[in-house]
Amino acid sequence: MGMARVLVGVMGPGEAALPEDCRNAYVLGQAIATNSWVLVTGGRDVGVMDAANRGAREAGGLTVGILPSSELVGASTFVEIPIVTGLGESRNNVNVLSCQLIFACGMGTGTASEICLALKARRHVVLVEPSGESARFFQALDPVRTHVAADTREAIQIARELLQDPGHLLDAQGK
Amino acid sequence: MGMARVLVGVMGPGEAALPEDCRNAYVLGQAIATNSWVLVTGGRDVGVMDAANRGAREAGGLTVGILPSSELVGASTFVEIPIVTGLGESRNNVNVLSCQLIFACGMGTGTASEICLALKARRHVVLVEPSGESARFFQALDPVRTHVAADTREAIQIARELLQDPGHLLDAQGK
Amino acid sequence: MGMARVLVGVMGPGEAALPEDCRNAYVLGQAIATNSWVLVTGGRDVGVMDAANRGAREAGGLTVGILPSSELVGASTFVEIPIVTGLGESRNNVNVLSCQLIFACGMGTGTASEICLALKARRHVVLVEPSGESARFFQALDPVRTHVAADTREAIQIARELLQDPGHLLDAQGK
Amino acid sequence: MGMARVLVGVMGPGEAALPEDCRNAYVLGQAIATNSWVLVTGGRDVGVMDAANRGAREAGGLTVGILPSSELVGASTFVEIPIVTGLGESRNNVNVLSCQLIFACGMGTGTASEICLALKARRHVVLVEPSGESARFFQALDPVRTHVAADTREAIQIARELLQDPGHLLDAQGK
Repeated sequence: MGMARVLVGVMGPGEAALPEDCRNAYVLGQAIATNSWVLVTGGRDVGVMDAANRGAREAGGLTVGILPSSELVGASTFVEIPIVTGLGESRNNVNVLSCQLIFACGMGTGTASEICLALKARRHVVLVEPSGESARFFQALDPVRTHVAADTREAIQIARELLQDPGHLLDAQGK
Repeated sequence: MGMARVLVGVMGPGEAALPEDCRNAYVLGQAIATNSWVLVTGGRDVGVMDAANRGAREAGGLTVGILPSSELVGASTFVEIPIVTGLGESRNNVNVLSCQLIFACGMGTGTASEICLALKARRHVVLVEPSGESARFFQALDPVRTHVAADTREAIQIARELLQDPGHLLDAQGK
Repeated sequence: MGMARVLVGVMGPGEAALPEDCRNAYVLGQAIATNSWVLVTGGRDVGVMDAANRGAREAGGLTVGILPSSELVGASTFVEIPIVTGLGESRNNVNVLSCQLIFACGMGTGTASEICLALKARRHVVLVEPSGESARFFQALDPVRTHVAADTREAIQIARELLQDPGHLLDAQGK
Repeated sequence: MGMARVLVGVMGPGEAALPEDCRNAYVLGQAIATNSWVLVTGGRDVGVMDAANRGAREAGGLTVGILPSSELVGASTFVEIPIVTGLGESRNNVNVLSCQLIFACGMGTGTASEICLALKARRHVVLVEPSGESARFFQALDPVRTHVAADTREAIQIARELLQDPGHLLDAQGK
């Protein structure tokens, strides 16, 4: 089975993130660290990405940032392991393939693309306080792997249950 | 300005495509050819991709298929220019960046990811006969670049107007 | 078998190309067009890429440019089908996977990476007037698929023989 | 400046690796760990990749594996942070962009492509016990960033000197 850690993503808007999205991302980053999972984000120093990394680091966690750029410039200062892809938005698929489960905080075109790619790759996604419109859209796309959480507490609870289920891991990563 | 042709995408489900999605894709492929645009699809020999390529080829058009695999196996027989990426679903971003406008026929996780990535890259997207849920979701994401067409005739009319507007092209590809 | 055209690449330096590399690339672009193959290059408006595209277009051929950038800016004016990848140098692997055979004119880090990736993907590579050092290095890496041509005439002759051999195509693209 | 760790790569053949390449990779993995750098490899459970990861883990280091596949299957059991790219050989560029310096143990088409892409991205590369042919080829491509080491001890010494020089880091990653 090896020594691979459990990688969990927090996806959400960058510059356009709302304050509540960032607050949720910070709390999820903390929870990921205290559960001994590794945080994966898109790695940039703005919005949900930066907030999640700050939360994880302040709780002593390990943070991986998968950057779109071909240089470190623009990375969150709270990313410990920067993966520099130079792939632009094609890196969104790398983000989700690397995770066993993804939290989405807030919505935008980039975030929505990651949720879609995650579901396509059969990863479970927990939407945190989504709009009714978003919840309906993604639940119609994949009712089995789309989960809706009313707050971060419920989101973490859903994640813990899914990640403790070996059947889920089998399904998600072909182990 | 160069000799670059206008590339227009038709995106939609593969194995899971509905018969009406494939009929629409076939008609759009024909229209793309008769308007002297070049068809771009994900290139596989199933569903919307295959139908659009067949339509375009039967109307004498040029067809580009941007394949996820690292081999030609599985390409539509109606693709004239196969781009073999080996990128898996990361090639979805290549599909949309290469197009000046995208038609979406039907819905699924892969198709939805392409619409999101297209809007992220500021490409206009014409949803052909979408569900109310899909229309509302994408119009909320980007009301300016999401267009809803009741049928293929209206879809083509929208595309013709957008592609004749130099301001649109400037916006879409940084020319 | 389908309608897929035969795609042939010309790879070589951009800004750092030598005049003789560009002259060779121009002649190879012409030959690719007159043999009814489709030219594939990295698509930029400098060096070997630009020269090959100019040669192919002036001989009435079809030209595909697989661009590293996420916009059309910087594309050769002689590219008819621009594939906009946004992948940076990761697009080098897309270039070579899409070709059934590759000519290399001149040498540099980008060109050498494409030759290596082509050989890795079991594509045949014709080095046109290489330095002794380059010829020895690549022939040691793959003596079967590395071909050395003393001039463009010999290069085209080698390509014609390889592309007429169905065993080669089978090997190269898993058909 | 942030908390980003120093990432150092060990690149080399997989199935075709020679016993001495694997022995060198094991020693380099150990040294990377004892210098508090993070090991980056292509992540697979064969050859140089597996040996380097085993060395780093046995010395208590952190190991990142950037996998070509879209699933965890085939990853080295000594990889702690698997980055699942689904990019095939296009992930080679992600490997090298993520590193501040790269060791090459052994030679093959994949390894050579990574060295070329590293030099293209202005990363320093230390060739460990290369053939004369390989040394000459890469030194001709980039005499400034290609370093030749007679054994692992010299390779590590070169790396320590380069990584202690802020000018090198500035150059390599645009900080």
